[in-house]
Amino acid sequence: MSDCYAVIMAGGSGTRFWPLSRRSRPKQVLALGGEEPLLAATVRRIAPIVPPERTLIVTAEHLADAIGALLPDVPTENILAEPTGRNTAPCIGWAAAHVRRRDPDGVIAVLPSDHHIGDEPRFVEILRRSLTAAEGGDVVTIGIEPTRPETGYGYIEVGEPVAPGVHRALAFLEKPSRDRAEQLLAGGTHVWNSGMFFFRVGVILEAIDEHLPALSEGLRQLDVAAALGNEPAEVRRIYGQLPSVSIDHGVMEKAKRVLVVPGRFGWSDLGSWTTAWELEERDASDNGVTPDTIAVDARGCYVRTSEKKIVALVGVRDLIVVDTEDALLVVPRDRAQDVRDVVAILAGRKDDRY
Amino acid sequence: MSDCYAVIMAGGSGTRFWPLSRRSRPKQVLALGGEEPLLAATVRRIAPIVPPERTLIVTAEHLADAIGALLPDVPTENILAEPTGRNTAPCIGWAAAHVRRRDPDGVIAVLPSDHHIGDEPRFVEILRRSLTAAEGGDVVTIGIEPTRPETGYGYIEVGEPVAPGVHRALAFLEKPSRDRAEQLLAGGTHVWNSGMFFFRVGVILEAIDEHLPALSEGLRQLDVAAALGNEPAEVRRIYGQLPSVSIDHGVMEKAKRVLVVPGRFGWSDLGSWTTAWELEERDASDNGVTPDTIAVDARGCYVRTSEKKIVALVGVRDLIVVDTEDALLVVPRDRAQDVRDVVAILAGRKDDRY
Repeated sequence: MSDCYAVIMAGGSGTRFWPLSRRSRPKQVLALGGEEPLLAATVRRIAPIVPPERTLIVTAEHLADAIGALLPDVPTENILAEPTGRNTAPCIGWAAAHVRRRDPDGVIAVLPSDHHIGDEPRFVEILRRSLTAAEGGDVVTIGIEPTRPETGYGYIEVGEPVAPGVHRALAFLEKPSRDRAEQLLAGGTHVWNSGMFFFRVGVILEAIDEHLPALSEGLRQLDVAAALGNEPAEVRRIYGQLPSVSIDHGVMEKAKRVLVVPGRFGWSDLGSWTTAWELEERDASDNGVTPDTIAVDARGCYVRTSEKKIVALVGVRDLIVVDTEDALLVVPRDRAQDVRDVVAILAGRKDDRY
Repeated sequence: MSDCYAVIMAGGSGTRFWPLSRRSRPKQVLALGGEEPLLAATVRRIAPIVPPERTLIVTAEHLADAIGALLPDVPTENILAEPTGRNTAPCIGWAAAHVRRRDPDGVIAVLPSDHHIGDEPRFVEILRRSLTAAEGGDVVTIGIEPTRPETGYGYIEVGEPVAPGVHRALAFLEKPSRDRAEQLLAGGTHVWNSGMFFFRVGVILEAIDEHLPALSEGLRQLDVAAALGNEPAEVRRIYGQLPSVSIDHGVMEKAKRVLVVPGRFGWSDLGSWTTAWELEERDASDNGVTPDTIAVDARGCYVRTSEKKIVALVGVRDLIVVDTEDALLVVPRDRAQDVRDVVAILAGRKDDRY
């Protein structure tokens, strides 16, 4: 088996977890649905297969120091700081270029940094299967077996098996309507797109050469700069001009053959406070609250405070309450996505404090 | 006109305004529905008629210092500290005994310390009329002309006039049912019991002699102790044994003739956070919120924070949110009375912090 590398994408801004998440403290560095920051959990989870020395983190420049501190076992040179976010294709391409300089035969696992995984042994098994499948030269993705007609995710159509637990991916579908999502769930032949990809380093870089020539040229310039010892300056100079395109659109959908490894391992993309409530241990009244919460006739609520504070909920239903030192959010559970509107308003005020 | 004295009852614990109100910081020392602490507003409002030197404050021992600091113009000896609360009759009786020692012909206005009054000039007019009526030797009360079928107040039946704007009070009614409250409002002959009473000092003390002999005896002991210069010790010794009875039950309902002065002057007893919302300046969406609140599709909400804090309300209706340094309350507007349950739970925990 070739050496495996992980590329963890950790540049997200996490606006949906405001006020806990901030520009300088996005979702991936927070502990949501557990005690451990999501990014640290991601690195730890894969360690049985990919040790921290072969784990690369791609993140935003202003987060690099905090992330370095969060991951003492990951070498500093493995933390790649993007001067500006250009979607996933440049991020993955740049990381793949790094891997190639070290090991042209490496197999890469591309993983999001901010997901929750409940059944870790099962996940590690699926991860191993996916990497093995990618060794053969195919592009591989993990598909989550759906448990509900979710309209917030993309779907993958699962075709015939090519190996035990490994199938052809027949099509990538955008986020469906509610009706369509129910059909997909009932049909039993579609899985959720997990955003986890696996490929040989040569395979992804050749696909970029073929489908994204501007990115390919940028990566070549970075390789040259790296050979001359001044990659950081070159990154700052050219990164903002790389094409902003997702790996899904730019490469995956154009690849000749993509394989999918279906699995179910307590996965959640932690898309909003509602999913944080779902993962929280809840009491008999379905409240997921701090020990210092007094709930009087309150049901289905989620409370999170970052300080020692008594919270009293009286006669409320299905409410999310998140309190930090300088901000407080109150939103019904089924409106948690709209927290982005608050962040947009704050951004519009150019008020960096929050 | 005889000299007028005010007796302001400021011993309340204000559990319904938790978490802003605490045992050590009850409602009357808070600024609710304005910038000014309610007790300070009460003293200031009556000053055109009763100067601070003739204003007595009866409060709980543990609040006396804070109240002294709040009212620099009120002489320290005018602040009477009850070692334990014994309802209104002992409180008023003790204060009346104090007044008698200074001025046996004094006329006393007994006033709550924690009400809001919107139209102060009109209130001063009604106050003057009430004191004048009490000079004649009657017990006088102010009745608030009702604006809604309120079930939270007692009512007074208004009889024939005995002077311009002064009527016989025919009956004192307990808090009515909703149906009964609607009848009372429609009938037009009932007013709300404001809890403000006026009488000559001799009149109230004779009524206590007649109807509450145990209290009468206690007040005599206090007078003796005061003459010997050790009233505070005697208060600590006997106060807890005085009969715990309200002035309404113990005296007013037994008085031969009570007069009522009806009036309307933007009065509110500020009974709960809901009334605080009612008095707050509200925006187009009926929200009474801090300037630092971001309301996205939120209506009819009340927000109060004691610190510099952004509050985001998304998609919520008719909610009260009160945040302090160490406690946070979320309750629907129509459940605001139930905040007492939270205080009871905290008291049961014997946790003095909150």
